[in-house]
Amino acid sequence: MESTVTKKDTLQQLFKNVRAFTETLVENLQTEDYVVQASTETSPTKWHLAHTTWFFETFILKEYDGGYKELHPQFNYLFNSYYETVGTFFPRDSRGLLTRPTVAEVYTYRKYVNTHMEALLSQLSDEKWAEVASLVELGLQHEQQHQELIVTDIKYNLSINPLYPRYMPQDKDVSSKKYETTFHSFEGGLVEIGHDGKGFAFDNEGPRHKVWLEPYALASHPVTNGEYIQFIEDGGYQRAEFWLSDGWATVKEQEWDSPLYWVKQDDEWYSYTTHGLERVHPDEPVCHVSYYEATAYASWAGKRLPTEAEWEHACQGEAISGNFIDELNAHPTGDEGEGNGPFYKVFGDVWEWTRSAYSPYPRSKPLEGALGEYNAKFMSNQMVLRGGSCATSASHIRPTYRNFFNPDKRWQFSGFRLAEDR
Amino acid sequence: MESTVTKKDTLQQLFKNVRAFTETLVENLQTEDYVVQASTETSPTKWHLAHTTWFFETFILKEYDGGYKELHPQFNYLFNSYYETVGTFFPRDSRGLLTRPTVAEVYTYRKYVNTHMEALLSQLSDEKWAEVASLVELGLQHEQQHQELIVTDIKYNLSINPLYPRYMPQDKDVSSKKYETTFHSFEGGLVEIGHDGKGFAFDNEGPRHKVWLEPYALASHPVTNGEYIQFIEDGGYQRAEFWLSDGWATVKEQEWDSPLYWVKQDDEWYSYTTHGLERVHPDEPVCHVSYYEATAYASWAGKRLPTEAEWEHACQGEAISGNFIDELNAHPTGDEGEGNGPFYKVFGDVWEWTRSAYSPYPRSKPLEGALGEYNAKFMSNQMVLRGGSCATSASHIRPTYRNFFNPDKRWQFSGFRLAEDR
Amino acid sequence: MESTVTKKDTLQQLFKNVRAFTETLVENLQTEDYVVQASTETSPTKWHLAHTTWFFETFILKEYDGGYKELHPQFNYLFNSYYETVGTFFPRDSRGLLTRPTVAEVYTYRKYVNTHMEALLSQLSDEKWAEVASLVELGLQHEQQHQELIVTDIKYNLSINPLYPRYMPQDKDVSSKKYETTFHSFEGGLVEIGHDGKGFAFDNEGPRHKVWLEPYALASHPVTNGEYIQFIEDGGYQRAEFWLSDGWATVKEQEWDSPLYWVKQDDEWYSYTTHGLERVHPDEPVCHVSYYEATAYASWAGKRLPTEAEWEHACQGEAISGNFIDELNAHPTGDEGEGNGPFYKVFGDVWEWTRSAYSPYPRSKPLEGALGEYNAKFMSNQMVLRGGSCATSASHIRPTYRNFFNPDKRWQFSGFRLAEDR
Amino acid sequence: MESTVTKKDTLQQLFKNVRAFTETLVENLQTEDYVVQASTETSPTKWHLAHTTWFFETFILKEYDGGYKELHPQFNYLFNSYYETVGTFFPRDSRGLLTRPTVAEVYTYRKYVNTHMEALLSQLSDEKWAEVASLVELGLQHEQQHQELIVTDIKYNLSINPLYPRYMPQDKDVSSKKYETTFHSFEGGLVEIGHDGKGFAFDNEGPRHKVWLEPYALASHPVTNGEYIQFIEDGGYQRAEFWLSDGWATVKEQEWDSPLYWVKQDDEWYSYTTHGLERVHPDEPVCHVSYYEATAYASWAGKRLPTEAEWEHACQGEAISGNFIDELNAHPTGDEGEGNGPFYKVFGDVWEWTRSAYSPYPRSKPLEGALGEYNAKFMSNQMVLRGGSCATSASHIRPTYRNFFNPDKRWQFSGFRLAEDR
Repeated sequence: MESTVTKKDTLQQLFKNVRAFTETLVENLQTEDYVVQASTETSPTKWHLAHTTWFFETFILKEYDGGYKELHPQFNYLFNSYYETVGTFFPRDSRGLLTRPTVAEVYTYRKYVNTHMEALLSQLSDEKWAEVASLVELGLQHEQQHQELIVTDIKYNLSINPLYPRYMPQDKDVSSKKYETTFHSFEGGLVEIGHDGKGFAFDNEGPRHKVWLEPYALASHPVTNGEYIQFIEDGGYQRAEFWLSDGWATVKEQEWDSPLYWVKQDDEWYSYTTHGLERVHPDEPVCHVSYYEATAYASWAGKRLPTEAEWEHACQGEAISGNFIDELNAHPTGDEGEGNGPFYKVFGDVWEWTRSAYSPYPRSKPLEGALGEYNAKFMSNQMVLRGGSCATSASHIRPTYRNFFNPDKRWQFSGFRLAEDR
Repeated sequence: MESTVTKKDTLQQLFKNVRAFTETLVENLQTEDYVVQASTETSPTKWHLAHTTWFFETFILKEYDGGYKELHPQFNYLFNSYYETVGTFFPRDSRGLLTRPTVAEVYTYRKYVNTHMEALLSQLSDEKWAEVASLVELGLQHEQQHQELIVTDIKYNLSINPLYPRYMPQDKDVSSKKYETTFHSFEGGLVEIGHDGKGFAFDNEGPRHKVWLEPYALASHPVTNGEYIQFIEDGGYQRAEFWLSDGWATVKEQEWDSPLYWVKQDDEWYSYTTHGLERVHPDEPVCHVSYYEATAYASWAGKRLPTEAEWEHACQGEAISGNFIDELNAHPTGDEGEGNGPFYKVFGDVWEWTRSAYSPYPRSKPLEGALGEYNAKFMSNQMVLRGGSCATSASHIRPTYRNFFNPDKRWQFSGFRLAEDR
Repeated sequence: MESTVTKKDTLQQLFKNVRAFTETLVENLQTEDYVVQASTETSPTKWHLAHTTWFFETFILKEYDGGYKELHPQFNYLFNSYYETVGTFFPRDSRGLLTRPTVAEVYTYRKYVNTHMEALLSQLSDEKWAEVASLVELGLQHEQQHQELIVTDIKYNLSINPLYPRYMPQDKDVSSKKYETTFHSFEGGLVEIGHDGKGFAFDNEGPRHKVWLEPYALASHPVTNGEYIQFIEDGGYQRAEFWLSDGWATVKEQEWDSPLYWVKQDDEWYSYTTHGLERVHPDEPVCHVSYYEATAYASWAGKRLPTEAEWEHACQGEAISGNFIDELNAHPTGDEGEGNGPFYKVFGDVWEWTRSAYSPYPRSKPLEGALGEYNAKFMSNQMVLRGGSCATSASHIRPTYRNFFNPDKRWQFSGFRLAEDR
Repeated sequence: MESTVTKKDTLQQLFKNVRAFTETLVENLQTEDYVVQASTETSPTKWHLAHTTWFFETFILKEYDGGYKELHPQFNYLFNSYYETVGTFFPRDSRGLLTRPTVAEVYTYRKYVNTHMEALLSQLSDEKWAEVASLVELGLQHEQQHQELIVTDIKYNLSINPLYPRYMPQDKDVSSKKYETTFHSFEGGLVEIGHDGKGFAFDNEGPRHKVWLEPYALASHPVTNGEYIQFIEDGGYQRAEFWLSDGWATVKEQEWDSPLYWVKQDDEWYSYTTHGLERVHPDEPVCHVSYYEATAYASWAGKRLPTEAEWEHACQGEAISGNFIDELNAHPTGDEGEGNGPFYKVFGDVWEWTRSAYSPYPRSKPLEGALGEYNAKFMSNQMVLRGGSCATSASHIRPTYRNFFNPDKRWQFSGFRLAEDR
């Protein structure tokens, strides 16, 4: 792994920016909001702030800063997420029960590590540079992943409160322009996907490799709320025939009748958003649906989801532009945006479920040591999502980016785009 | 129900004192500490502060203050504990997930209700006085109960943190005087127990009634840590023969090997206390044991627990003095204290489990209306405890006071005193 | 403990009769019916047949028959119920997963032990007689308890089958005579209850002891289905105000809306009985209700349940006659029967919940050794029932008999009789 | 779908043989053994016997035999497995609680349906032949799948009995010839896998399609017990570094320390087999391991599992010969057997886990109507296994056959073969 940032001051500036943006994301919160964990999937904001800091402390400062003293001997235990090879860690499902360290103490921890990191970066010898820079870059990409989790977790953690607290201050107007979804065909054949090694990528994105694709078509836009409501109204959640077996079991057990956060009031669908409870807008991409719901909708519509190879092949020429967390909106928009190929809303807005299980690419190798636990060990029971969401940073997403979640998870900004055989 | 406080200004002063003492109890906490709920048995501090306030708002202000406007329409839903007849309420086991209202907003709520209560009390007509005063007194007794729960819940909520945060600032020296436990005999016969109606009592304490007692003896002191360690070292937690069947199932399921909060380090017993992790002091009463552990110890010792009638009959002449929350220590002491009968540590220090299931007294009547839910509906699956603890207010306890918990509960300051047939 | 059967041949005959009656109870079953366990509360018929046999093997043959060889070395592990001091035992909730030993092998086991028991009894020396006879008597009383469990467990185990299999062959006509329930008053005062030591009794029934009773009245008849339906129709299962807190939680969690086994078809109540699915007869005592339902009904009716002392004091003169398992009907009848005091249906038909928690009587002592586990260790979280049911043997019941179950249990033939203060 | 059996009398004979072989498989059982269900994954033998019969009744007799009367109106409810479109069905996890219909009645049901099926087949008009024959063939393949489940489920259901009952009567000697595992390389490239439509195949096996493979090598033999024990002894079950995250969670939760059915006695590994408890033979393929264990072993060995495409590509020329259920042994053997390519034990012995998640093949189509539920709806959270086992019929397996189970399942005869990149 080699850093893609070759200039020292560029990396230093990047470090400052990414670390600062994390704090920007939480500046509207009350102290209490940092503490809770409303489901075992989410983590407290406080924990995210500390864990991303622990990452730099553990994998860089402790390794490369000879004089470094950890701020607190228990923080390794409290803020290690899942790196078994780095030692035991506090149970994930109890993170929301820890009142100490306090929020203020966590900010102190961030400052302490930032200061040491900045000193290390400015003093680093040339021979260590490559090694450390690549770890710093990884740490920043890691922090960006947690920025997205901070947004999705805060949304979930606040959502269970009947007071429906508002998280993001500003509202974005949604254009009323109605767009048409069309399907664009590809001949397939022997194509290449995966990261080619130029610029940063996670270990799970490469190597670039050949895949055979049969002819297929991909929808120009993700499925919208309006389209999804037709599925609901056609009895989608009551008709087993559309569902995977595990999905149908989940529908019955969880009593699902609509996407996460939707509530019906006076015969109208509302949804808890980062701006509070709002009417569901028919032109926005449907969001907070599970893989099971995506496949049930596709089956109802007589289509299917794309494989990740189809998605990447079709979309690899699209520009990285759209509705990202950089705008501090944290909600999909009804804006069509501008496609620079035939596809719209490829990046940003909503992650798009694919029908591909998350598996290792041919001849892929995980990172060495503890960082080998970063991605590879999650390769079971998860499905790949592509394209980033309104909670993703624009600088974090790539056409080859592979996100992954269990097929029943809904608290990410997850939607989908249809495909079909040709 | 009639108030036992007949002077207006006495009640007004009492209202101020009790309400203020609640806030004294939490003044060392950080904001984060107010939020969490580390088990379904405990509640967040924030919730206790609001719920006790809701009690006055609901049962007094809304009934007797014609112009009263509730501060927030949702607070009734959020802070009703279990009064089914007052409406639906937020699920008890999710109280620790509510970040809003914030701590500051809860203090605002307290002030708002205090102001209205004080105004109401000062303006109350004479004909309404009796009715309202008795409700105020009930509300204050209710708040004192929650003061005890605040202490026990904070202790539990902080205990799961590996940083072992300290709650109570000051430490109390423990005298090293070792005392002897002796048994004092009573002939029994037809005796009376229960509250006689003079002064405040809960509806579950009366009416005073006859009970036949066989000859018995009661121990001068509660069982100590030192004595309890002998039970542990004699294999107490490994020998089914001493245990109730449900108790033995609990031991195995919960993997109990000592009282709650005890940990063994370097072959020495330590215990998490309100002052942090401390060595277990052999002369302090054993504390944080369940009814199951109390009965197992008694069985091992060849004794039994007293019935609540025996306890009350033996102790009804004892003075209400001892180690209460008034001292802001919140930990049992090794001090023998001064008995004014043959018994020591009757009040304060630790609640004492009795072998009596919590049931209605003969000819007892619950309060009318919603307040009838206060006590009577809990009369199944619980055992009676007597005497108050180091987390109880001195002004809250009486010889007739009946506390009650499920036999597996340990997070209260609960110990026990032995009895035997004579 | 001394046997109440003093003649050798009486005991021998009793042994034969009781052991044979167990087999009579199951003679209509198919092999498959012996195997299953439809809830953790029930046991397979096969297990009951073997466990009662194990009791004689373990506590008598292994102790008093020098040449006795156990039939199989694993049967002690498989058929010990809960005697911790006799060794480990197969998990209770998995008994229904054991296909071996087969039913035929269990009958072989019964015969083997019967033969050895009969030989032992006929050869027993006079000095051993008293000791062994009292154990035999205990073993037979134990077997009678399991006869009742066989009936209630078979009923439950078959009830979950949508084919509604019939268990008991014959049907009993129910007289249509409608009776009136009246209340009979007692002055109370210092009375005696408990077993006086004449004739057989379990260790939990004695010693006879004084109890003070306030004036009270007891209903002449148990509550009927017709009366209970009024409670249902008045919203009894939807109104929290009538319920104990634990009871209300159970209603909601278990979605109770009627007694166990009741189903509504075409707006009519039916009930699964030992004769198959039948219309609920309004004049039969209501049956298969929990303590929670009994107290809710009583609260709705403005009455209460009797204490066990009140029940025993009022009913101790009643004759042991009524509808018992001896008639192989296994269903409460609408027949009033003949009271020989003011009370009807005191014995047989349905067990009657009392408001007394199951606790040790003053100065009571459990049996020594393993048999001390028979009763005493269950004295927590259970309520006392009195009077026996249609699944009880007439020769097994007494006015002092204390049955006990958790307050949420319904699979016994359990009903109730009302009381009130006077 | 067209039948691959074109002669009427061939199909009639096949029907007789397959149906009869099911009964052969259970002829050593006791009635009791047919009833239980020791985990929710297994089904009672009785249920399998009835369900396979229900399949013919539902999809053939009710559709094509105009005069057919179902034997019992409730059997559709009781013996439908999961076909939502055929109506509601009895809860899967309670199948072991049904004592009725009895075993004898289930045999009557089989005979009844057999008789009607045989009559239908002999009278079938030519125009209906193709349609019905293909359904009969599917029904027989379905029955063969359940034959395998009967074997694996009986094994599991008996395994929880401490008497370790023997299921299969005969023992097979295991040759002591030790074989060497070697790796055979393939260049990969653009290859074809999947069923080509000649002969019977399930809908999930086709269509035949192109796949790009990188160069790889596949092991000549499955991993053996002896090799697996080295993994265990090297701390395999204690070292998180080898495990998928979900796998490691399972290891800890289920307290796995060896394959299913293994027990250590006197420092020696034993395993419950269909012949009772036996010493683990080092030269037999390791069996009853989950996907998680297979991947952990592979990771420890510095290899990986093959994809299903690699497996099929490498093994498609191998002969279908080996250790199948036809021999009524139901246990993997240490015999090397005869490979007719470079690979041994490809078919029979143990199913082999692949690293491929179970997903639809490109351009695949599920069957129409209710039978569309046969395979496609299970395409989430499962991994593909290849090659059949000692519980599979020789006539049931093919190189293209795709079996699938959740990655934590172990009660099938599942092992694995290693692969590596070249």
